[in-house]
Amino acid sequence: MKKPQLVWDIKPVSYILGRDAVLLSEKKLIEYGKIFVLVDENTRDQCLPVFQNILGDLKIDGVICINADNKTLEQTIHVWKELSDMHAERSDLLINLGGGVITDLGGFAAATYKRGINFINYPTSLLAMVDAAIGGKTGLDFMSLKNQIGLFVDPVSVIIDSVFLKTLDETQLQSGFAELLKCGLIMDTDLWDCLVDKTYLDIEEWDELIVQSARNKVDIVRHDTFEQGLRKILNFGHTVGHAIESHQLKKGENVTHGAAVAAGMICEAFISNKLFSLNDEKLNQVVKVIDNNFERFNLTVSEIPDIVALMTHDKKNKDGKFMFSLLKRLGKAVHDIDVEIPLIEESLKYYMAN
Amino acid sequence: MKKPQLVWDIKPVSYILGRDAVLLSEKKLIEYGKIFVLVDENTRDQCLPVFQNILGDLKIDGVICINADNKTLEQTIHVWKELSDMHAERSDLLINLGGGVITDLGGFAAATYKRGINFINYPTSLLAMVDAAIGGKTGLDFMSLKNQIGLFVDPVSVIIDSVFLKTLDETQLQSGFAELLKCGLIMDTDLWDCLVDKTYLDIEEWDELIVQSARNKVDIVRHDTFEQGLRKILNFGHTVGHAIESHQLKKGENVTHGAAVAAGMICEAFISNKLFSLNDEKLNQVVKVIDNNFERFNLTVSEIPDIVALMTHDKKNKDGKFMFSLLKRLGKAVHDIDVEIPLIEESLKYYMAN
Repeated sequence: MKKPQLVWDIKPVSYILGRDAVLLSEKKLIEYGKIFVLVDENTRDQCLPVFQNILGDLKIDGVICINADNKTLEQTIHVWKELSDMHAERSDLLINLGGGVITDLGGFAAATYKRGINFINYPTSLLAMVDAAIGGKTGLDFMSLKNQIGLFVDPVSVIIDSVFLKTLDETQLQSGFAELLKCGLIMDTDLWDCLVDKTYLDIEEWDELIVQSARNKVDIVRHDTFEQGLRKILNFGHTVGHAIESHQLKKGENVTHGAAVAAGMICEAFISNKLFSLNDEKLNQVVKVIDNNFERFNLTVSEIPDIVALMTHDKKNKDGKFMFSLLKRLGKAVHDIDVEIPLIEESLKYYMAN
Repeated sequence: MKKPQLVWDIKPVSYILGRDAVLLSEKKLIEYGKIFVLVDENTRDQCLPVFQNILGDLKIDGVICINADNKTLEQTIHVWKELSDMHAERSDLLINLGGGVITDLGGFAAATYKRGINFINYPTSLLAMVDAAIGGKTGLDFMSLKNQIGLFVDPVSVIIDSVFLKTLDETQLQSGFAELLKCGLIMDTDLWDCLVDKTYLDIEEWDELIVQSARNKVDIVRHDTFEQGLRKILNFGHTVGHAIESHQLKKGENVTHGAAVAAGMICEAFISNKLFSLNDEKLNQVVKVIDNNFERFNLTVSEIPDIVALMTHDKKNKDGKFMFSLLKRLGKAVHDIDVEIPLIEESLKYYMAN
């Protein structure tokens, strides 16, 4: 089967998705002055050689390496310093070659260096390909709060090529798989049907899934760049998921974003079942598919108050109320749903018990 | 004489300039959730009471105070922490009540907190009224480099009321006066003619000068928000001026922005005289007006290499070349003029000698 390919110019961003995307991106790179590449230790060793092999003639003026484990201000300062030391100018380009940490932090660093230099995202993880690299959300964690500091700012291009997936370990594939599941649940029953009887370990051919999922996300963010309305549906699973992620971080346990969102989706599917038309059968199906792919976290009832407290920092909150994105039914999400604390607590108990 | 007033809605920013501007701004403030005010120690003591006196019914949910002396990342972190601790949400508002440090740093902090909350600038210094608070440039100094980190991001409103000028000392009035002079030199011979036989100590009625100068700046930035072309003329005096400012900072001497720009304008008027139609008579007039208002810095020829080296970080540089904004003639500026290092050195020697 011929692999899918999609070249999509949607001002102000141009996308190249699928087959030979990196190769096709070559012509995007010639209009800049100096070219700098941001990597982490993994992508420096695993992905940069692949990238350079495909784009044999490309002159890279500097490589900046950060730690992939966390998106901190300290790491951002490191990027700013390196750009300053290498005399990067406004006409130069930063290439973000890596997963969500690289695209989130690199986008923020580029957009704030000298009031903004251009950057291009080359996501190398499944999570970044279907989610983080698309849509202009950049961010850093601050005071144990996810993405507390950041910007909406677009890269000039996003280049998504599955060639990098072979550099990933199973945990990274698993993490990205959560966002694929989410994409199916909130807006694409065809995609959900493709995923429902599989686990992330069964999939051999990722291109079609990635192009379909990335295309869905592009379509949403082009209609609501600044998350005033529709875009909020992408946060399904993330209100509880981010709180669990922050909670585990405080406990010193590093969890993947995908695993946290998977847990959040179980809780928020439960809430959807209580408030909307996601019936028991569909709820059970959602939970089963997630459980087939993710182990539950070991959480106890005594931890619920801290998890709920962490939600008070959620960026979707309004007037002190918790605003959720939920499933009206399978394949259709709604946003700005005010959920009361007792129901949130009940959903966490459901997650722990069932 | 009736004081001038200008209410000007230019999407996405609305401006209120002149008489009773603070009072008129009341209706802008009702559409937000919580209201936070950023001040420094001076404006907390001098301006906040004036502000609260005019807007008697306004409920302020929190006051954040920083140090007026420098725009550092540490101070930005302090603002982010305070906003986090007070659970500021996207629907809330930050009021920047102060000079250029407050509007530059506050704008950056607001725009990057939770990917952006709204902010309104109430400039209290002459410099901020005619320059810093207008046009969406925010920034921090980093590694001794002026505004090395920052963003183009617009406040929702800019409210310019001369009521705050009485809180200023002479040095602050002097600093702002440099930008008024610049405005006349680059684009407004009427304004220049008003200023040419005065010093900043002679002026009793500021409103008309402020409204005229601020209006000029608004007009330029609305046509070129991201400084692709025309807006660069506002940088007249700033290429050399910023380098001198950074150089003095490295020496441990704090100089005002205005005094540095005044020195820069002497150098760049000299270069304009060499390259364009700013004749000797006009050059001498420019230098005389500046000298009537600003003492020269004590610089020696041995310091020239460091000053020139600092220019390599200028944000207007392209392909390693120094790009200047210069005077084609009095009242008319041009931008993107590539100036060779020997002529820059010559201009610094002219500054030191004449």
